[in-house]
Amino acid sequence: MAPLQQLVIIGGAEDRAGDCQILREFVRRAGGRSAQIVVLTAATSEPEEAGKTYISVFKRLGAAEVQIVDTRDRQDAEKLEGLLAIAQASGIFFTGGDQTRIVRAIKDTILDDAIRKRFHAGIVVGGTSAGAAIMPNQMIVDGNSVSSPHADLVRMGEGMGFLPNVVIDQHFAQRGRLGRLLSALLLEPSVLGFGIDENTAMVVEGDEFVVMGEGAVTVVDDSATTHNNLEKLGTVEKVLTDEPLAVLGVKLHILPQRYRFNLRTREATPPII
Amino acid sequence: MAPLQQLVIIGGAEDRAGDCQILREFVRRAGGRSAQIVVLTAATSEPEEAGKTYISVFKRLGAAEVQIVDTRDRQDAEKLEGLLAIAQASGIFFTGGDQTRIVRAIKDTILDDAIRKRFHAGIVVGGTSAGAAIMPNQMIVDGNSVSSPHADLVRMGEGMGFLPNVVIDQHFAQRGRLGRLLSALLLEPSVLGFGIDENTAMVVEGDEFVVMGEGAVTVVDDSATTHNNLEKLGTVEKVLTDEPLAVLGVKLHILPQRYRFNLRTREATPPII
Repeated sequence: MAPLQQLVIIGGAEDRAGDCQILREFVRRAGGRSAQIVVLTAATSEPEEAGKTYISVFKRLGAAEVQIVDTRDRQDAEKLEGLLAIAQASGIFFTGGDQTRIVRAIKDTILDDAIRKRFHAGIVVGGTSAGAAIMPNQMIVDGNSVSSPHADLVRMGEGMGFLPNVVIDQHFAQRGRLGRLLSALLLEPSVLGFGIDENTAMVVEGDEFVVMGEGAVTVVDDSATTHNNLEKLGTVEKVLTDEPLAVLGVKLHILPQRYRFNLRTREATPPII
Repeated sequence: MAPLQQLVIIGGAEDRAGDCQILREFVRRAGGRSAQIVVLTAATSEPEEAGKTYISVFKRLGAAEVQIVDTRDRQDAEKLEGLLAIAQASGIFFTGGDQTRIVRAIKDTILDDAIRKRFHAGIVVGGTSAGAAIMPNQMIVDGNSVSSPHADLVRMGEGMGFLPNVVIDQHFAQRGRLGRLLSALLLEPSVLGFGIDENTAMVVEGDEFVVMGEGAVTVVDDSATTHNNLEKLGTVEKVLTDEPLAVLGVKLHILPQRYRFNLRTREATPPII
């Protein structure tokens, strides 16, 4: 049987100083005391600082080894050192920053191939903030928060594709991003959107995820949406950009810690006890 | 046949300088060129300034007469002048400010009786921001924005009850208040919540409302919610306050201008053309 794929997708601002519930879970899934973690700092313009922080916290949480792989450009992503690190990694972690920097430097390089190979072998891949945004095949590049849905609210771009056919937004409740997530969902064929709060994670294993942390994961199920203000141009539907989008019959779940969600059946489940 | 009751419920920050689409509709419903509008400034600590603004804009929009009734306390709400103004009014408007000030000064006074009598006679009643919050029988008094739902996020209090059995929140998308509205809904028996954006209004006529303005009205239909993390204490359900609330299967509609919603059937309808 193929190993289950594992993701720890964090909505940003995870606890790195206290109990570190989420990062602790990441380390546990990476093998605990034998964990060999690679931290990818491509997203941030301050890779040294971010690197130091994660080396310190992952070591404190018991990881055997933590190595930084920083890629400023695609040439960096061809370097042997990074490839070797990934080949030996038992956990791979993307820091926050700007999601486009990750895609620009790593997507479709041999480093990407190496990461993907380890991921399909069952090695846990984690990411926070920008590192969470990159998980789907289509990601939110940027867009305004605190607005009702609007077709020109968000800009989408190619993501890293670890969790296909969904849309992810981070810092969700903290930045009031319901409108932004709904806009993104309307702009692409996915029917599931996940809004992850700060210091909160979706811990994915195969077809299911469980919520962990302080806040909640808001699940937007767009499959029963019956109407929005699209303009029919012959057989092509064009989204009207000059007014707010209508969204009728979206189903919403707000899941705090220990709640589960099945990505295939789209069903949420409360904790057993 | 009893006249249909009319409300113009505005999410705050409505246009008062330009085309004034929403306030224009209020004046139209109050009788247009024969409109006799009473502006109630109880909510604001700057009644003179608010009064001047609304006199100016309602006059500009063609109202025949605009009168300010300012009530600082319940004694003010017994004054003959205010009662006479209400008796002759063809439109009654509550300004923004602090919603508790309205309830404290007016609720259950003879001014309240007078307003209610006119309202039931079919006279349009409007309100913006705090003046919108007071419309239900249970209102959101205060509570944090930009958070996932949490039982201790909001404080509820008695409203004026023009639109019973619903919960209303204002400045909705602009302040990221989905969590706050859901929290309020979970704390009381209503199954319908309305989040009104700035410069946007629910224009209620009988059992139906139509959306007007720049943003959207977010309708939260709680009737199919199947579970949240309530703790059963014997036969009493107690909401857990130490963690985010779980919300499963809430139905959401986001309605831009010209979309309609039926309060009785809970069905949303797109514009006819």
